[in-house]
Amino acid sequence: MSGSRNHRDSAAPSDRLTARSALASRFERIRTQTETLAQRLSAEDCALQSMPDASPVKWHLAHTTWFFETFVLLPQARDYTAFDPHFRVLFNSYYHGVGDKHPRPERGLLSRPDLATVYNYRAHVDRAMRTLLTRELEWEIVALILLGLHHEQQHQELILTDVKHLFSRNPLRPAYASRWPLLPVKPAALTWHRYEPGLTSIGHRGEGFGFDNEEPAHQAFIAPFALASRPVTHGEFAAFIADGGYRRPELWLSLGFDSVQAQPWQAPLYWEERDGRWWTFTLRGMAEIDPHAPVCHVSYFEADAYARWACARLPTEFEWEAAAREVTPEGNFVDSGVLHPLPSAGFANGSGPQQLYGDVWEWTSSSYAPYPGFRAAAGAVGEYNGKFMCNQYVLRGGSCATPASHIRATYRNFFPPEARWQFSGIRLARDV
Amino acid sequence: MSGSRNHRDSAAPSDRLTARSALASRFERIRTQTETLAQRLSAEDCALQSMPDASPVKWHLAHTTWFFETFVLLPQARDYTAFDPHFRVLFNSYYHGVGDKHPRPERGLLSRPDLATVYNYRAHVDRAMRTLLTRELEWEIVALILLGLHHEQQHQELILTDVKHLFSRNPLRPAYASRWPLLPVKPAALTWHRYEPGLTSIGHRGEGFGFDNEEPAHQAFIAPFALASRPVTHGEFAAFIADGGYRRPELWLSLGFDSVQAQPWQAPLYWEERDGRWWTFTLRGMAEIDPHAPVCHVSYFEADAYARWACARLPTEFEWEAAAREVTPEGNFVDSGVLHPLPSAGFANGSGPQQLYGDVWEWTSSSYAPYPGFRAAAGAVGEYNGKFMCNQYVLRGGSCATPASHIRATYRNFFPPEARWQFSGIRLARDV
Amino acid sequence: MSGSRNHRDSAAPSDRLTARSALASRFERIRTQTETLAQRLSAEDCALQSMPDASPVKWHLAHTTWFFETFVLLPQARDYTAFDPHFRVLFNSYYHGVGDKHPRPERGLLSRPDLATVYNYRAHVDRAMRTLLTRELEWEIVALILLGLHHEQQHQELILTDVKHLFSRNPLRPAYASRWPLLPVKPAALTWHRYEPGLTSIGHRGEGFGFDNEEPAHQAFIAPFALASRPVTHGEFAAFIADGGYRRPELWLSLGFDSVQAQPWQAPLYWEERDGRWWTFTLRGMAEIDPHAPVCHVSYFEADAYARWACARLPTEFEWEAAAREVTPEGNFVDSGVLHPLPSAGFANGSGPQQLYGDVWEWTSSSYAPYPGFRAAAGAVGEYNGKFMCNQYVLRGGSCATPASHIRATYRNFFPPEARWQFSGIRLARDV
Amino acid sequence: MSGSRNHRDSAAPSDRLTARSALASRFERIRTQTETLAQRLSAEDCALQSMPDASPVKWHLAHTTWFFETFVLLPQARDYTAFDPHFRVLFNSYYHGVGDKHPRPERGLLSRPDLATVYNYRAHVDRAMRTLLTRELEWEIVALILLGLHHEQQHQELILTDVKHLFSRNPLRPAYASRWPLLPVKPAALTWHRYEPGLTSIGHRGEGFGFDNEEPAHQAFIAPFALASRPVTHGEFAAFIADGGYRRPELWLSLGFDSVQAQPWQAPLYWEERDGRWWTFTLRGMAEIDPHAPVCHVSYFEADAYARWACARLPTEFEWEAAAREVTPEGNFVDSGVLHPLPSAGFANGSGPQQLYGDVWEWTSSSYAPYPGFRAAAGAVGEYNGKFMCNQYVLRGGSCATPASHIRATYRNFFPPEARWQFSGIRLARDV
Repeated sequence: MSGSRNHRDSAAPSDRLTARSALASRFERIRTQTETLAQRLSAEDCALQSMPDASPVKWHLAHTTWFFETFVLLPQARDYTAFDPHFRVLFNSYYHGVGDKHPRPERGLLSRPDLATVYNYRAHVDRAMRTLLTRELEWEIVALILLGLHHEQQHQELILTDVKHLFSRNPLRPAYASRWPLLPVKPAALTWHRYEPGLTSIGHRGEGFGFDNEEPAHQAFIAPFALASRPVTHGEFAAFIADGGYRRPELWLSLGFDSVQAQPWQAPLYWEERDGRWWTFTLRGMAEIDPHAPVCHVSYFEADAYARWACARLPTEFEWEAAAREVTPEGNFVDSGVLHPLPSAGFANGSGPQQLYGDVWEWTSSSYAPYPGFRAAAGAVGEYNGKFMCNQYVLRGGSCATPASHIRATYRNFFPPEARWQFSGIRLARDV
Repeated sequence: MSGSRNHRDSAAPSDRLTARSALASRFERIRTQTETLAQRLSAEDCALQSMPDASPVKWHLAHTTWFFETFVLLPQARDYTAFDPHFRVLFNSYYHGVGDKHPRPERGLLSRPDLATVYNYRAHVDRAMRTLLTRELEWEIVALILLGLHHEQQHQELILTDVKHLFSRNPLRPAYASRWPLLPVKPAALTWHRYEPGLTSIGHRGEGFGFDNEEPAHQAFIAPFALASRPVTHGEFAAFIADGGYRRPELWLSLGFDSVQAQPWQAPLYWEERDGRWWTFTLRGMAEIDPHAPVCHVSYFEADAYARWACARLPTEFEWEAAAREVTPEGNFVDSGVLHPLPSAGFANGSGPQQLYGDVWEWTSSSYAPYPGFRAAAGAVGEYNGKFMCNQYVLRGGSCATPASHIRATYRNFFPPEARWQFSGIRLARDV
Repeated sequence: MSGSRNHRDSAAPSDRLTARSALASRFERIRTQTETLAQRLSAEDCALQSMPDASPVKWHLAHTTWFFETFVLLPQARDYTAFDPHFRVLFNSYYHGVGDKHPRPERGLLSRPDLATVYNYRAHVDRAMRTLLTRELEWEIVALILLGLHHEQQHQELILTDVKHLFSRNPLRPAYASRWPLLPVKPAALTWHRYEPGLTSIGHRGEGFGFDNEEPAHQAFIAPFALASRPVTHGEFAAFIADGGYRRPELWLSLGFDSVQAQPWQAPLYWEERDGRWWTFTLRGMAEIDPHAPVCHVSYFEADAYARWACARLPTEFEWEAAAREVTPEGNFVDSGVLHPLPSAGFANGSGPQQLYGDVWEWTSSSYAPYPGFRAAAGAVGEYNGKFMCNQYVLRGGSCATPASHIRATYRNFFPPEARWQFSGIRLARDV
Repeated sequence: MSGSRNHRDSAAPSDRLTARSALASRFERIRTQTETLAQRLSAEDCALQSMPDASPVKWHLAHTTWFFETFVLLPQARDYTAFDPHFRVLFNSYYHGVGDKHPRPERGLLSRPDLATVYNYRAHVDRAMRTLLTRELEWEIVALILLGLHHEQQHQELILTDVKHLFSRNPLRPAYASRWPLLPVKPAALTWHRYEPGLTSIGHRGEGFGFDNEEPAHQAFIAPFALASRPVTHGEFAAFIADGGYRRPELWLSLGFDSVQAQPWQAPLYWEERDGRWWTFTLRGMAEIDPHAPVCHVSYFEADAYARWACARLPTEFEWEAAAREVTPEGNFVDSGVLHPLPSAGFANGSGPQQLYGDVWEWTSSSYAPYPGFRAAAGAVGEYNGKFMCNQYVLRGGSCATPASHIRATYRNFFPPEARWQFSGIRLARDV
């Protein structure tokens, strides 16, 4: 949780009223958006768990609600009654500070509470939240509500990636949404943008929301570097495969090549070879790969190996942030409704690198670590970010499954280097 | 599949008509019974899989249907169209002769086809079967239909044991059925019935249905032995626990004590200690153990260890069969609706051992092996039984989850020695 | 341990003296033979453990000594001092009754005590045993010493099979012994010997030594059957492989085919294909397979699948015993020094089936189970056999690594169905 | 491999002669030191492998020799004949560029070649190296020889840590060396040294040897911080344990607490509780912990949790290096012969932090990553460092098992966060 040190409210009463109503309407918008995403799914679709990393949609619906009940309503709304006391344990994700939790790999064993009950749970909590939001709230509570909303947006993205994974394990390969009429695009050549060396400020400075892991803002020295004008495409990655990329240990980190052999991996997640052509599973069903669209569902290991093959490297998260803050954060987010990365021509933001935002999360070479002076928030919400700062790598920029209002230049996403079920892709960098 | 060599139909036309209509009505009855069992369950309840050994209820509903489609309709009903060609693979359990199969541990990843579709599948196949059943059928086809019906009854039992396991993994401990008003009983003391030595005939002789593994009937020599008058009770087993039974390696088979330590086991499956008293999870929710009811959900290892502790042993399957064929096959089956073993007083069959049938499957000391001269049926249905004759132990007599019309003295059930999620219990024997 | 009920000594003093000196010289012979087998091995060879099932040779040398120290000397020789009190735990194999034991998979972590110390341990115990053997001993003690000697012979065989496994894991494929000049043989065609049905006596009757698992002798009814005239050969098994044997699920037990796919298996243990020809690793190094020699290092699963492919089956252990007791127990044992199975012509015992004894242990279809009335010996030695009677299959007849004086018609060896590192082969049977 | 860009030899002939003889004598010294370390061990001690992370001493003896044979002699010494062509695969650690390698977890399966043969291998290679070292060598070859010597020093440390682990798995707890007479010390209080913020140069600048992972030197900005005056002691760590440190999830990284529960961990590696006091296994046998000596054998997870408990943090590797380059690299290295960390009073280097060098490797909070502009060496030696830059953390300063001549301020050691068998300890830092 963040920003508590910079946001004290000293505004006039009318401003406060406006702020309150803005928060209330943001609450409605985001809560509704979650349910909209789940609307196309049956109770059965929402109940299953396809791997320990993924959760049932029903669990996402409940856990985001649990967050408001546990961290906002129970401590702050005096007359609030918990919807069901069992849910405190059942829908706790990983907060030791809240007490026991139901084991993550067993989230798919819960046919009860059923989906209808979980929607009732949402309604129950939403009602209480609406009442609370009419009150004048201290900044700490507003900050918790904002955190809860950003938290819910993270789970909106997970609803899509987790149901995609579930459907991919079904031999019927069901589609989450119907086919999209794609227009032909003129491919964009990959060029390089050069950046000068220097001391620069990294991290979130406290205007608007930021997670605690984006703070404190601090100085870092960046050597000169160049950044690719667009992400690596499906077609380029297919060339890497055709060149024996998955069989050449010299291209890989040692752990990466161990993964290649143990799994084994021969292509990004969801790719299938059919009569010598590559197809991939999308939220709109099986489709032949679009050679000009950014490659996605690659692990850090694959991103790193591709970069080595291409005589380049991944950017550090500081390089990425320095480049991205000069660019408007627009792109192909979940709001476009496409639900798949689009070729470069789709969105253009001026003369800088394209598609830094949206389409695919971009793996950086940076291990997920605390910024100098980092301090986790007090209480259980302090477990939000800090305790995961080990053996994970930072991704930047959001994807086609991220809400547009959720992203910013300083935003740090993170996953273990072997994770592939997110819309994770590759942006190249190089020394100059 | 069985009996093909002994059941040739040489009856008069009117007899054949009667037989046909008996088969048709048996078909209706058993197919309906399956759906009745599933009626209390939601689509979500039916979709989940709690362990690789258990299957989702939806899968049981579909697989039993697949059996008729694959082995009867597609080969025999010329104008029959498969409901969905994907189902050939999706709902194949283990028949290599039918081709590929969906991996068993992934049966719980199928939110599609949804439950409604599976019921449509059942209706589609039932319609075609009804038509077929009006035709004059060769004995081989009748035998396959009978096999399919007995097969479906086996899955009726699995629906109950699998959903019980699923619900037991849910911290809410949901009940499949509501509480049962239990009457107090006068406990029956354990006494011994003595049997004389001699050559005896073992196995199914071909009057009525029998599985191939019950054949051929053959001679076996049985030494004199005694059999306990009733199964071991929850109370007796609690005494074994209190006497350190799970901590004394000298009572256990070596593999059994390995299991005790690896799991670790401290009581039968579903038992929970609350304030120094034993409770157990039942299909009617959590309940304190009834000391006089037969213990269930014990592995072969626990049955064997208990017997050693009680200075007795498990009966061989031949001893069991010799005793059981003198007893009417009546007892507390699924038809009673109790869904849990009952104390001995509940059902009495004359002066012989009580409760040989129903209540709990009784572990025998016999490894599951072919009878002398055993020959599996030709074709894929030959995979029904024979290929599992390794590292499993025979259980006899049926349980409170078995349909009454499904059981007989020669019936051989079998599970690996570590299996506990069936209603498996203990009948003691000893040398005399 | 066996025979205690039948062997009471009521002989004259001079007879007793003879018996005592016979026991003493048997003790010397067997203890020396163990060390002779280990003589060709370095301290390093003796220290390593290649898998949890196998033990270091040094451990075998110590454990067989531990047996005499623990079960004979410490209880019986009043002035005996344990060589090293740590050894009680360190070299306990599986006797819970003796207390703690060093974990089996960690036997290869003991560089200390070194090999020289273990030889000192042997000498220390041998000295004390020699003294004891000059005393007049009660039958119970004689029986324990006999048990210890038969136990040591079992470990003599394991020294060979375990070091063979260890050497097979070394890319240098070292040889335990130098090459053997093999003579060309005329292959023996496989014919069938027929046996009549009837009640017969099975098990050890108490003349000479027998393990407890061979007792009590009891009646069994055997249906008519035929037994193959010799074991299946390497050449015949190669034909099974060439016919796709390892790829055809219909030939296998379900667990067997699971093993084939999981390992995966494509040939017996130690076979390697080189330029389209089969080679195998032997105690004399790599050699091309001899098509006429009995195949060895097959699991029960492979034996069973081969039999099905050959339209036959494995014999039951009762069938095997009924046939074998009519044959003189001679054959290619460890005493021949060949250390590998020989073609049928090598040894001939009259007109019955050849090679029932020696060459290869023959898998039977019988699960390892107690004979009717079986009772384990009192005390820790009661753990010798009984507690392993689960999920193992009986092998009969001894192998080229078994001491000739160790075998008899009633002898029951047993291994899990997936075990392959013993000299285990195939004898076919069939119904008639 | 490093320094190739900065070390070109433009010296006069006599200087070159001196340099050559210095290299030759360094070669002799380091090669001899390895054998001295192994001298106290038997052939059996040298053959065993106690876990996949550790290697048999014999393997270390051979692999360090393989390095010179493979990378120096075979390419450079025209008349050199490989000692045994099998060794190319057998003693390859992880160089894909050299071809196949024997699997790491199976290094303990090689009783052959025996220890004597490995010493012959060493002698064979040493002879050829001595001849080569009399020649005038190009810088690239000198650099490879230097790399080989530093590589061998790394394995000297591993010989000690690996044999310590092996002996710890033996219930006899054998000692590598005899007990050391320890003098009483006056404990040193922990104080803090403060460092000012600023841009500083990090990494090896090319005077003397450095590994490629220490290069290139580059600028980094360091915020103000304070560093503890000495490492955390055994006594301080015991207080952390007594305070429930291993049971309080809020002190741990999420992956760290997973390890605590899965292993489970209750103290550092090698600690054993005896009658309420902590003992630890040392290279000199079991000893009660010395409360004033630096704690060792802790994982990154334990170091991080301790720091959080102590309201401090681990230093970054840049902070550590900035502090360490102001201190003379002296300390308790393997050369002292103590083989265990010593209390702070043992060695003092002026007024700065004590014991930065020697005693224990100090975990830093820095993920092991390439320095900006890092480029791996060409050819197989390029696999030396770069491919391991993932999911490992940097340790600095050397330990009581590190050769003194092997360490420097820029030296980067690295291990996965769960590794404990190195002499790894804790230095605290904090923000100011």
